Amino acid sequence: MSAPTRSRLAPGERRDQLLELGVALLADRSLDALTIDLLAEQAGISRGLLYHYFGSKQAFHVAVVRRAADDLIARTAPPPHGDPLERLHAATTAYVDYVLATYDGYVSLVRGAAGGNAELRAIYEEVRAALSDRIFDEDPEGLLVTDTPAHRMLVRGWSALTEEVVLTWAAEERAGAARLTRAELDALVVGSLPALLATAG
Amino acid sequence: MSAPTRSRLAPGERRDQLLELGVALLADRSLDALTIDLLAEQAGISRGLLYHYFGSKQAFHVAVVRRAADDLIARTAPPPHGDPLERLHAATTAYVDYVLATYDGYVSLVRGAAGGNAELRAIYEEVRAALSDRIFDEDPEGLLVTDTPAHRMLVRGWSALTEEVVLTWAAEERAGAARLTRAELDALVVGSLPALLATAG
Repeated sequence: MSAPTRSRLAPGERRDQLLELGVALLADRSLDALTIDLLAEQAGISRGLLYHYFGSKQAFHVAVVRRAADDLIARTAPPPHGDPLERLHAATTAYVDYVLATYDGYVSLVRGAAGGNAELRAIYEEVRAALSDRIFDEDPEGLLVTDTPAHRMLVRGWSALTEEVVLTWAAEERAGAARLTRAELDALVVGSLPALLATAG
Repeated sequence: MSAPTRSRLAPGERRDQLLELGVALLADRSLDALTIDLLAEQAGISRGLLYHYFGSKQAFHVAVVRRAADDLIARTAPPPHGDPLERLHAATTAYVDYVLATYDGYVSLVRGAAGGNAELRAIYEEVRAALSDRIFDEDPEGLLVTDTPAHRMLVRGWSALTEEVVLTWAAEERAGAARLTRAELDALVVGSLPALLATAG
């Protein structure tokens, strides 16, 4: 960004740009490491202006995490048509891609949400609900999953399984100790859902 | 406990009694609410003596959580013999019983562990590893599960699924909004593992 370009941006656009930068910085660092100072340095603007836009470090973090959550939901939308299992495969693979590409930030969100930060927890729960609800919304004919209490519970459990398995694999892979290939990981996660649903009749 | 009985206890026995009391108090309150003051009041001894036994509130919490973790592992041991699926059912039902009976303390452990308390996290990971490893150790002939990298990953994922499903059901049940019966919950969790393992061939 050059100064003349910046000066022509409306405040909402500038704030959007700063949020995008925050999301990008969060990909490979934790929330704790995503400071106002770092953002100011990377954006080439003053700390004072950042406080003007976001109010506080906490409010800045919540805004960045909300933007990242919206990104995640958008990027993991299944293709509009096709075989139900292929659509699930595409959406799930996109989720795995997202977690792997933003591992440090993702882990810090999970920990922040679980650790008692109420605003982060609310965003985390919203994302999980949105991803789970989508599985039912995208399948109104019940080709893959029918809408029963048992299936709702299993899809919620499958979300937790998926997160655990992907984060475990990512940690192993970063340590050079992964015992499954990426393709095996994808197949394991995608294959788990129909298998679970079949048990609930 | 009467004073004469207390005075005859060796220090190790007294500390054990205090830990048991701490575990009992943790069942229906969070770690934050489990204070040295509360334990002193319930045990009828001085705060000073408790600091003598445990050193600090943090050390007291770690000792209580470790004792609770040992309890959990002991109480969820499968019966020594029998059909593999029936043994899994007994162990899993005992886990569900334990989480439901100690819901507030369990949730606070999960949050404390996820939220960045390194000692709580280590205990939590130990428990999860112990419960997962036991599924393989208890089945050396591979009647239910063979020891492959994919199965190890799936059992880890199933542990996360189980925790999520049981905590979700417990929260719903406390709000009078559970949509599955306890028997349906047990069947769903127990049935999930063989179904998952079957997908990994």
